[in-house]
Amino acid sequence: MGLIVQKFGGSSVADADRIRNVARIITETYRRGHSVVAVLSAQGDTTDDLIAKAAEINPNASKREMDMLLSTGEQISCSLCAMAIEAMGYPVVSLTGWQAGFRTNSAYGDARIKRVNTERVLAELDKKAIVIVTGFQGINKYEDITTLGRGGSDTSAVALAAVLHADLCQIYTDVDGVFTADPRVVPEAFQLEEITYDEMLELATLGAQVLHNRSVEMAKRYGISLEVLSSFTGRPGTKVKEVAKTMEKMHISGVACDKKVARLAVVGLADEPGIAFKIFSLLAKENINVDIILQSIGRNDTKDISFTVSKQDLERAKEALEAHKSALGFDHIDVNDAIAKVSIVGAGMVHNPGVAAKMFEALYNAGININMISTSEIKVSVLVDLSEADRAVQVIHDRFFHEFGGN
Amino acid sequence: MGLIVQKFGGSSVADADRIRNVARIITETYRRGHSVVAVLSAQGDTTDDLIAKAAEINPNASKREMDMLLSTGEQISCSLCAMAIEAMGYPVVSLTGWQAGFRTNSAYGDARIKRVNTERVLAELDKKAIVIVTGFQGINKYEDITTLGRGGSDTSAVALAAVLHADLCQIYTDVDGVFTADPRVVPEAFQLEEITYDEMLELATLGAQVLHNRSVEMAKRYGISLEVLSSFTGRPGTKVKEVAKTMEKMHISGVACDKKVARLAVVGLADEPGIAFKIFSLLAKENINVDIILQSIGRNDTKDISFTVSKQDLERAKEALEAHKSALGFDHIDVNDAIAKVSIVGAGMVHNPGVAAKMFEALYNAGININMISTSEIKVSVLVDLSEADRAVQVIHDRFFHEFGGN
Repeated sequence: MGLIVQKFGGSSVADADRIRNVARIITETYRRGHSVVAVLSAQGDTTDDLIAKAAEINPNASKREMDMLLSTGEQISCSLCAMAIEAMGYPVVSLTGWQAGFRTNSAYGDARIKRVNTERVLAELDKKAIVIVTGFQGINKYEDITTLGRGGSDTSAVALAAVLHADLCQIYTDVDGVFTADPRVVPEAFQLEEITYDEMLELATLGAQVLHNRSVEMAKRYGISLEVLSSFTGRPGTKVKEVAKTMEKMHISGVACDKKVARLAVVGLADEPGIAFKIFSLLAKENINVDIILQSIGRNDTKDISFTVSKQDLERAKEALEAHKSALGFDHIDVNDAIAKVSIVGAGMVHNPGVAAKMFEALYNAGININMISTSEIKVSVLVDLSEADRAVQVIHDRFFHEFGGN
Repeated sequence: MGLIVQKFGGSSVADADRIRNVARIITETYRRGHSVVAVLSAQGDTTDDLIAKAAEINPNASKREMDMLLSTGEQISCSLCAMAIEAMGYPVVSLTGWQAGFRTNSAYGDARIKRVNTERVLAELDKKAIVIVTGFQGINKYEDITTLGRGGSDTSAVALAAVLHADLCQIYTDVDGVFTADPRVVPEAFQLEEITYDEMLELATLGAQVLHNRSVEMAKRYGISLEVLSSFTGRPGTKVKEVAKTMEKMHISGVACDKKVARLAVVGLADEPGIAFKIFSLLAKENINVDIILQSIGRNDTKDISFTVSKQDLERAKEALEAHKSALGFDHIDVNDAIAKVSIVGAGMVHNPGVAAKMFEALYNAGININMISTSEIKVSVLVDLSEADRAVQVIHDRFFHEFGGN
């Protein structure tokens, strides 16, 4: 008997049958004596359809009007889900982002939650109602509608779980949980029973795409117990928590692959102090996140600086650098967007030297060339050719998980 | 240089091209130096599509959740229209019903506007922005979304015109204005340059379907100058005002036809005082509007009472009466839903006796039987068989307008 926040993604509410299925999961939880707040995304392709409608009218529409438009998607899925629950005979109310008290900053399209006024939601829970809340949205100080950016519904759910002091936040999706690798790439990949926030965070950032990384950060900060599970199969999911029970020999928890990266090389820079600072403060000003950085001595007293950015920032990064070519003093910029970042993640790694070496060995044995390397306490990332990315994930997974007999 | 409220119906914003067309009309008005507030309906069939989605999930969904669902329609059309105006380079902002300050009572699905807080709209107008407002919706005291019922966008526009003290309220639709009859039925019907509120009100109530009658009532109460015109042709429309200039010989302004009526006859009532009161107070309690009433002496010390209701209320009216059969003491109820109400409307009628007689003569000459008659200061309505309704409109129109040489 506690308070459970459940989040359902777009594929879980894609049509009438799936909405009824979600309504069954919610009412089943309610029937077991829990208070339930459910956070829903927009149905299936609704958001993409709305974006296409806008693009037809104005490809450069303001983000303020885009948010006004896109926020209708969750309002539709939530009211429909409430109707399905009404049909099952349970008390229910659907609430928009502003009705549920989500106040954000004014960064339209990518807003941050500033606070959640829980008054309305608590009043509805007091009345024993099931509360259905639109994910992904809120209002700013001007009372204009904002959206949290793609995947923001996870963040909405975790934020609600935090302010309501929920006992559990369940993230329902179309996969059974968190896997040691993408099962479409590595057939032998298996589901993890538990994972730590930090590991999940690295996996989310690295492209595992199960959970939005902002939501994991928030869950970690507020100590929210998360569970990732399927809305279709009813099987137990993966628990995300502060400390996970890890098998003695289980050093890594997964292999992730991010194909949405590109590498820039600024070639022929003068070999003088402060040049790296100039480049990366310029990119920071443009709001471009830089990931792996490699600095090398070039020919004739010059050096090169290489780094990765997300593919969508590639053009802007290049333009920003070219615009300051004379001030920075480089020869030219090389670009490679046919690359992928493959990573191993594991909280057990830090106490087990040799994990990185084992990863490199696996790649070497498979004849896969490593472009760049980056490491942290709980992950090792390498840059490989895009065409070899899936094979890299497979051989790394084989090397680590086969040895341990499939966990 | 004044403030103009413009309302655009669903067919005027049905697709991207039409939204661009509406954006052109709005910006053209703005360019001439006016402040513009535009009220939009949902695109084309959006509302029907949403209703179908809901019916698939729960045919008996609560009206509260239906309003939550349906209100997304105008939010989509308004944000898209704002984007089209942005693309033309004008300052613009779209506002939902609650953002624009529409506060209503809690009659979900058929709410009444209680007040409009103009603060936000005025602030945007001060900033020289074009303001696009979702029609048809508001919020109640619980901050839940309500809708005003079908055609409510007209009412939203007139309400805004009233509270903003607008100089003009233009209702853009898919016809050129108000006609002397439905041009699809009477090819010679012609457009009226001007019409009084009262005439328009009778025409709206009688099924002319150009303007929502609640909006005309409100325009009359607050003295708002209305203009009905086409968003497609650019031709001058019909002005609706307190006193219209009427040609000397122009006694009537139009012939209307309402095919959505049904007649009930309560047969064999005891011929005692108070029986009519009992019947109609019973129906009033059920919220059923009664129109034409006819009371006749029946056989053997009993009498019959006949009256018309809208077709959609027929079953409920019959059930309510049957449930009180013993208290009311009647023999049986006759029902006829194959009828239509044909009316002539005209402010000039009151000073010109013989108008009704001329109407009856036209029907007599055409061999069309009159079932029931009802008159007011500015209209005469008759009930005819549904199969003869269009011909009745035609011969009445011929009789009045041919004589005057097409106005």
